[in-house]
Amino acid sequence: MKTQVAIIGAGPSGLLLGQLLTRQGIDNVIVERKSGDYVLSRIRAGVLEQGMVDLLREAGVHERMDREGLPHSGVELAFDNRRVRVDLAGLTGGSTVMVYGQTEITRDLMEGREATGGRSIYEATNVQPHDLETDHPYLTFDKDGETHRLDCDYVAGCDGFHGVSRKSIPQDRLKEFERVYPFGWLGLLADTPPLTEELIYAQHERGFALCSMRSETRSRYYLQVPSNEKVEDWSDERFWEELKRRIPSDVAANLVTGPSLEKSIAPLKSFVAEPMQHGRLFLAGDAAHIVPPTGAKGLNLAASDVNTLYRLMVKVYHEGRTDLIPNYSPTCLKRVWKAERFSWWMTSMLHRFTEEEDFATRMQQAEIDYVTSSEAGLKTIAENYVGLPYESLE
Amino acid sequence: MKTQVAIIGAGPSGLLLGQLLTRQGIDNVIVERKSGDYVLSRIRAGVLEQGMVDLLREAGVHERMDREGLPHSGVELAFDNRRVRVDLAGLTGGSTVMVYGQTEITRDLMEGREATGGRSIYEATNVQPHDLETDHPYLTFDKDGETHRLDCDYVAGCDGFHGVSRKSIPQDRLKEFERVYPFGWLGLLADTPPLTEELIYAQHERGFALCSMRSETRSRYYLQVPSNEKVEDWSDERFWEELKRRIPSDVAANLVTGPSLEKSIAPLKSFVAEPMQHGRLFLAGDAAHIVPPTGAKGLNLAASDVNTLYRLMVKVYHEGRTDLIPNYSPTCLKRVWKAERFSWWMTSMLHRFTEEEDFATRMQQAEIDYVTSSEAGLKTIAENYVGLPYESLE
Repeated sequence: MKTQVAIIGAGPSGLLLGQLLTRQGIDNVIVERKSGDYVLSRIRAGVLEQGMVDLLREAGVHERMDREGLPHSGVELAFDNRRVRVDLAGLTGGSTVMVYGQTEITRDLMEGREATGGRSIYEATNVQPHDLETDHPYLTFDKDGETHRLDCDYVAGCDGFHGVSRKSIPQDRLKEFERVYPFGWLGLLADTPPLTEELIYAQHERGFALCSMRSETRSRYYLQVPSNEKVEDWSDERFWEELKRRIPSDVAANLVTGPSLEKSIAPLKSFVAEPMQHGRLFLAGDAAHIVPPTGAKGLNLAASDVNTLYRLMVKVYHEGRTDLIPNYSPTCLKRVWKAERFSWWMTSMLHRFTEEEDFATRMQQAEIDYVTSSEAGLKTIAENYVGLPYESLE
Repeated sequence: MKTQVAIIGAGPSGLLLGQLLTRQGIDNVIVERKSGDYVLSRIRAGVLEQGMVDLLREAGVHERMDREGLPHSGVELAFDNRRVRVDLAGLTGGSTVMVYGQTEITRDLMEGREATGGRSIYEATNVQPHDLETDHPYLTFDKDGETHRLDCDYVAGCDGFHGVSRKSIPQDRLKEFERVYPFGWLGLLADTPPLTEELIYAQHERGFALCSMRSETRSRYYLQVPSNEKVEDWSDERFWEELKRRIPSDVAANLVTGPSLEKSIAPLKSFVAEPMQHGRLFLAGDAAHIVPPTGAKGLNLAASDVNTLYRLMVKVYHEGRTDLIPNYSPTCLKRVWKAERFSWWMTSMLHRFTEEEDFATRMQQAEIDYVTSSEAGLKTIAENYVGLPYESLE
């Protein structure tokens, strides 16, 4: 089997890259370890930056998103039993975000791929890239009891943090940066109307809480919990009670509860691997970096990597600009570190790190007091939340 | 002896408060442990916020400052061998700071006090406040081999971190917040022309450096050094060489060196005591809070406490508004915590905390990259650097 770009991973990054390349006449094959149904069952992010929305439009998979997605022109910060609105549109000259679940994007991209006849190989095990430092890399994988070979020009590693792509880069060529936070997020999905029209990020002495949504009838809530917490210890009732304690009383009174569709705990981590390119392998999204979810940057950062890789491949195949290849990693990393900073800062400001009321907790309080009382402070949140501009390859 | 307001400490806070009160016809006596010459010999801060400049004008001690002080409409941040200017005036709608040494202010205030006939008692040892929780507090102190008593209505504790004022408040009534940084500042004063017209705050992998000044012919430089460093180990030559390494090469080439007039190491600490009032005792300045010097907030924060206490005393004596007394501490603390946050943040962003290039050092780099590349980011520095508005008592 032969293609131009072999894409490892059929999550939103791999699918979006594939769709964009296909529309530019660049042949690609997606190889995915799991089944399509499994990929679709993963409940993940749901807030899209304008840049990602534009990219989905460029990929031609925007119809349902434009119909069902909820444009948000603000988010709220809550603390001290009060709420402060961050007027995203007003503070950034009109930029907004779109609430539309990752599951929905994945579904749209899968359908788009089917419509354009793109090749996807699901349930491919033992995926392994080879000869990445030569001009003729290839993948091997097992499928239906046989080992297959996929020859290609380039490999896109869109296979997430635990994927094989990053692990294929020799350890001595990679520098890794990591911070593990001493807590996780317990998430609950329910078919209940969202608490308010906009998201609420709540700082509270009992811990952080986030009131989010996937649609006008589906809510997504999160609670900061200790790292060693077990999801079995959280009945729906306990979750709802704890959530009510952590959000301002005026909105807590309006909370509509209901049975959970899903409940899980995710650890919080910051991670960056440098560089994001090795020979003919390009890492994109979680394969190269992880952000804590505070600030909704994970999926969006994957999209901006995809944007860079897509534009690079177009330059390579349409203009022969292989000289731009070394620019991929620095171009991505510029934006990656900015998003890492914002995610780390939002996480640091909004979570409870210690039981004590010490200097650090007072600094958190002073930080949220300051940023919410200063227009410049609010603007630093707004411009990062809607997404900093995409970086150019040249 | 009897007065209305007994002021403990003849540093700039005590002297400024005394001068302001005297001009409003409120009798006061300053009691100072050291000699006037000793107080004048302390080399301290030198960057005044507009609010403090205005307050010095209100105190009538502005003539020499207006003549010799250097108004600065910007400061520079240096990193990655380049400099970015923070246009203080442009970003804040015209606010500036004034470079004028604390020593000069102290001298002007001493002369002002002499001119108005204010009473100051220097070299008063064993100063002790009494009966602070009654309507008739008083101080005792030893002077010329005798113990004296000073009866008063109110006591202003302007005697710094190590003074007796804060220690007079029962421990169980005070809450203290502290952060000690693992480094200090080695300062050098020299009669050499300043490196540039504006201050340079330099982030560098070898550690932070600050290029400051006291006048057009007197420079003040600082280097971050480990906490256990000894000043004897730093010859002038070693200091200048190290400074050159930490600042951008274009300006390092212009550095004019010369013999040091003074060289000393100051530890860096954040500290706040709450509340700032106990009975008839009011704490002001370092007696209640310490900031690390990054951001030049220490003296200015003392001035804003003095402003609040001065306006409170005027309300009390001219309008009988003793009901405002409980507002003193919360009014001061609102601004104190904001300045503590800014000083902690500037310190955290600009200093080297570890030898390793880890996630934390990358976050520092991303922070300075972001704030210097975003107008909103620059504005958060500018509006804090020139000084947030004074808080009102009512």
